[in-house]
Amino acid sequence: MKLPLKWEFPGGKIEAEESKEDCLRREIKEELNIDITIHKALTVIEHHYAEFSLQLYPFVCSLHSGEVDTLEHAQAIWVDAAELKNYDWAEADLPIVDEYLNGQQDNNKHMVHSFLMVGQSNMAGRGFLNQAPLLFDERIKMLRNGCWQTMWEPINCDRPTSGISLASSFAAAWLEKNPDREIGLIPCADGGSSLDDWRTDGPLFKNAIFQAKLAMENSSLDGILWHQGENDSLMGRSKQYAEKLKNIVDAFRNALEAADIPFISGGLGDFLPLGRYGQYFPESREVNEALLGFTENSDNCYFVSASKLNSNPDGLHFDAPSLRKFGLRYFQAFHRQTNILGVLDNEEETVQRLEQRPLTAAEKKTVLEIRYASGLLSQYEYEKQSQHLER
Amino acid sequence: MKLPLKWEFPGGKIEAEESKEDCLRREIKEELNIDITIHKALTVIEHHYAEFSLQLYPFVCSLHSGEVDTLEHAQAIWVDAAELKNYDWAEADLPIVDEYLNGQQDNNKHMVHSFLMVGQSNMAGRGFLNQAPLLFDERIKMLRNGCWQTMWEPINCDRPTSGISLASSFAAAWLEKNPDREIGLIPCADGGSSLDDWRTDGPLFKNAIFQAKLAMENSSLDGILWHQGENDSLMGRSKQYAEKLKNIVDAFRNALEAADIPFISGGLGDFLPLGRYGQYFPESREVNEALLGFTENSDNCYFVSASKLNSNPDGLHFDAPSLRKFGLRYFQAFHRQTNILGVLDNEEETVQRLEQRPLTAAEKKTVLEIRYASGLLSQYEYEKQSQHLER
Repeated sequence: MKLPLKWEFPGGKIEAEESKEDCLRREIKEELNIDITIHKALTVIEHHYAEFSLQLYPFVCSLHSGEVDTLEHAQAIWVDAAELKNYDWAEADLPIVDEYLNGQQDNNKHMVHSFLMVGQSNMAGRGFLNQAPLLFDERIKMLRNGCWQTMWEPINCDRPTSGISLASSFAAAWLEKNPDREIGLIPCADGGSSLDDWRTDGPLFKNAIFQAKLAMENSSLDGILWHQGENDSLMGRSKQYAEKLKNIVDAFRNALEAADIPFISGGLGDFLPLGRYGQYFPESREVNEALLGFTENSDNCYFVSASKLNSNPDGLHFDAPSLRKFGLRYFQAFHRQTNILGVLDNEEETVQRLEQRPLTAAEKKTVLEIRYASGLLSQYEYEKQSQHLER
Repeated sequence: MKLPLKWEFPGGKIEAEESKEDCLRREIKEELNIDITIHKALTVIEHHYAEFSLQLYPFVCSLHSGEVDTLEHAQAIWVDAAELKNYDWAEADLPIVDEYLNGQQDNNKHMVHSFLMVGQSNMAGRGFLNQAPLLFDERIKMLRNGCWQTMWEPINCDRPTSGISLASSFAAAWLEKNPDREIGLIPCADGGSSLDDWRTDGPLFKNAIFQAKLAMENSSLDGILWHQGENDSLMGRSKQYAEKLKNIVDAFRNALEAADIPFISGGLGDFLPLGRYGQYFPESREVNEALLGFTENSDNCYFVSASKLNSNPDGLHFDAPSLRKFGLRYFQAFHRQTNILGVLDNEEETVQRLEQRPLTAAEKKTVLEIRYASGLLSQYEYEKQSQHLER
């Protein structure tokens, strides 16, 4: 259908036995060479022009993140929603513009469900990247420069040693319960930080609040994930742990205007006092007791046991397979609104199921592109594998 | 020297033929098992106790960043400067406390000279990490969660494909002229961003201003490094480039209260229209002209040519060796306060010299630790190589 000099949304004719969604993905790919995520259907349009009639099935979509995010050809433009009304639309498309703009505030607010990652290195994540299978899902986002990008580990790049974190399996488990939604992770954990480093006038707290607020412009903040305490496991600091933590949780909730937001905190590893640096953590048990005690006395605060989780050779950081399990436990605490005091049933199987979720065709392509654009796949291999995907 | 129940700064006796600085590093290592960076000497203390006299050579130092940042033993504490006065000091150490506190505001402000990285992917950096030697220097810092950490590439983790950036060789070249100082990089560039994405009410600009202001609490902001334009090389956007850029530069300078801060912007690659995605950049030359024209009409704004620099196989991103050279050109533009319109003399040799700077013993150790803690070195290899270093 061509209406010269009128603007239309991209799309095209449904082919035999093709779903509306598959049609849209195919057409957008053909017309604009981009991959999209489809979020929700808008009202079907029946329109009668003088010469012909048509049905339009509009969907709210977003662009996959990627290097070139507006691959326009000469007759395509990408505009801010606020500018949509300035264009001369084909008559059939006009009601779509209106419905989209009316619903936009809601769409934006509820498209991504976000979680703030705060604490020290074991929240940032130090799992070796080569010690767990790739966990990739285009519905999991991470905040980068105030915008949502598709998640790729490491999520929380606080140090050169950043690796796999518990937040990725947390998000994957969350998606099993919310398959039609998107989840966003806000990485603000910082290696080696003590509770005092999280004081409300310090850079860590200020940065976390700023990032969370930026994220909240385009998501609904659903929880705070906390892991911290190694650096308060000495010098008698554990005695003040519960009180200091309470102040910090209150400060987060106040600053984010989210009085009841769930706060999930995990325990320190049992391995801590026994490892290479064990001498620096004489009070790790007391910190665990303080974390547990705190959650028992505070609304919507839950404790997650680290029992039977293992460490990297440093005896300090959870290893990658353990972080996958830990993320499941964090999710169960969030989902069931309860403390998780030990190993879950079927932990290993659940991790495997999440790691082995079949990637969609678009996801496979994105993974290939990332590896190619990082120099990990040659041009030849990239093209060969891309062709293989398209077959 | 022992004064029971009094607090002292860590340190010890200078051994034969040992420098004061080497003594301090050795003593702190022996007493606290940490590595330090020495910033500046304070006034030498001659103190006469009833029973003995001594000379103290105090230095302002900082802790290397690392996972366990307070490796205290039972009789050591690490306190905020604000609390220093609350302790019962050995008499000889008291004047050090006073001098440090008096100078602290200045120390903090001028210890790190910082530069803001803004623009799109070629400022973030997509050089393949395996395509250039490690560039590591403990005097180069990067902002992480509002705090300075020792630089490690990728600096600007906006996407999974983030790699080597021009900022690292910029910093290394800066250090050749300022060997006794520290430089800090504030990574806020975002892949695929257009000038419109950098509008002053958008997340990219807001985040960059917030990060720069956090950094300025503990550094002096000396310049803005900009590379952007690929996403304004189409649809006639190049015509508005100079005007839009002017507005953004003005907005940065206003928001940062830094009216004269140097703004260094690099040109787009000559390869751009010829590569895989060349069809999306029909106006890259016009953008380069706009960038050059803008700097000619604006105070303290300089243009850096990308001529003869090469790309990754994608034909889109500068490759790692080219980014090293580009960083030198950015530095020369900053240092000489002039446009750099082509290849520098001895570019290759300068890059080699920077990449081959011998690491200090502490730096070698940090690099080993990072590789070990990232799972790239086995426990055995790590210990073997550590022992080798200590010999």
